[in-house]
Amino acid sequence: METTRTATQVIPILGDPVAQVATPALWNEVFRARGQDAICVPLDLPAAGLAPFLECVRQARNVPGFLSTVPHKASLASACDALSDTARLLGVVNTVRLTEGGRMVGDMFDGQGMLDAIEMTGVALAGARLAICGAGAAGGAIAIEAAKRGAREIALIDTDAARTAALAEKLAAVAALQIRTDLPGSADILVNASPAGSPGAAPPPFGAALIAGARCVAEALTDPEETELLKTARRAGIATVPGREMARCQALRMRAFLGLETTG
Amino acid sequence: METTRTATQVIPILGDPVAQVATPALWNEVFRARGQDAICVPLDLPAAGLAPFLECVRQARNVPGFLSTVPHKASLASACDALSDTARLLGVVNTVRLTEGGRMVGDMFDGQGMLDAIEMTGVALAGARLAICGAGAAGGAIAIEAAKRGAREIALIDTDAARTAALAEKLAAVAALQIRTDLPGSADILVNASPAGSPGAAPPPFGAALIAGARCVAEALTDPEETELLKTARRAGIATVPGREMARCQALRMRAFLGLETTG
Repeated sequence: METTRTATQVIPILGDPVAQVATPALWNEVFRARGQDAICVPLDLPAAGLAPFLECVRQARNVPGFLSTVPHKASLASACDALSDTARLLGVVNTVRLTEGGRMVGDMFDGQGMLDAIEMTGVALAGARLAICGAGAAGGAIAIEAAKRGAREIALIDTDAARTAALAEKLAAVAALQIRTDLPGSADILVNASPAGSPGAAPPPFGAALIAGARCVAEALTDPEETELLKTARRAGIATVPGREMARCQALRMRAFLGLETTG
Repeated sequence: METTRTATQVIPILGDPVAQVATPALWNEVFRARGQDAICVPLDLPAAGLAPFLECVRQARNVPGFLSTVPHKASLASACDALSDTARLLGVVNTVRLTEGGRMVGDMFDGQGMLDAIEMTGVALAGARLAICGAGAAGGAIAIEAAKRGAREIALIDTDAARTAALAEKLAAVAALQIRTDLPGSADILVNASPAGSPGAAPPPFGAALIAGARCVAEALTDPEETELLKTARRAGIATVPGREMARCQALRMRAFLGLETTG
């Protein structure tokens, strides 16, 4: 019998492990509040389960797409039939849409989520100078999106010189802008996209003068909710973006990509 | 990384279609009321998706098992590594448990659910005479379970003579009891396990005298909630089992089988 997504829309989130992921609780709260017949479901799946998972969700009629967290972001990018520019440049996806024809389209929304949140503080990206701590997937996505939105200078700060250089090279291909891999003397926007400042780890190496001279300080960490970086910025009267605000903006982008925001 | 079911327990229910299935809403209400970290998720899956689905859930660490409805009950019985007596005799399963080693154990709980509900009205099965309308999977499971619980006589009523005879043969192998395939003059327990009485269909062929002489009248249909059969029995002062009560009892058996009633 042919039916087309008549049932509850199911959005799996894949991880190994997955118990730490807050997305199902947050998304299901939104769906419940809206009366939307959709559900986000965590799947604790080792790498060996990816291929059958993909084959299964391609066949299922009520799975518009799925989300992914560690360690599957790169494998899933390889498995996609099409990728956004950012996902292709970084080689990772955190959201995959399944098209009617069974194709998989992957994207990576950390950058859009963070920059949407920054712009909501009233700080424009066009012509801005950013310093981003962390040259991993999240930092990379943020840097690429900042370049697309007209940033004038981006400083990439990471203890891993090789991956910093690799990201700088990718970034140079996106737009014409100043790219540096050392701490600048001043910047308009400071972003932490690294584990620095998480429990047991020192905060990112943004000094007091750098913070005091910024217009916006943004944090990707959600644990703790209030990092030292955010506290310092707030004491200095600087606009801040906490990790949960980036996550909220990113979730909106992800759900729109999966066709789950059409009911407004 | 090795984790063992640290995440939400996910129980898929497979169907094609699946939008009509009430199980996810009913189960999730129970889980929510208990504060149990488990979720039942409908999956609208054509037959081509069964093999990858099975491989995926064998790999996943937070799927204790799954449920199945039309048209997958027979295919899944074939795919199981072990079956209950009832599931093996009937060749169908509606619940599959995944063991730690990745084995699939299938069972069919319509019979236990219905007979649990009948016994809760105070009517004993030992020595009872039953008339069951419907010799399909549900009727078969109910007949087999009644035989196991000591029924003395079972009359199987179905318009399909061949499948009625086939079920009578299977039933004879379960226990020594009287089996007939015509309407008896009297019976202790009347069961409708057929579509008779659903919207647009005539009620089962249980006459007024048969109903008035019974001690319990049970209905498997849940739509409508109040069938003509139930109304007639209630007017005659006979104990009744509505379809939703059978469904409730069956759900308890299914969840226990999947290890979800241990926190009870």
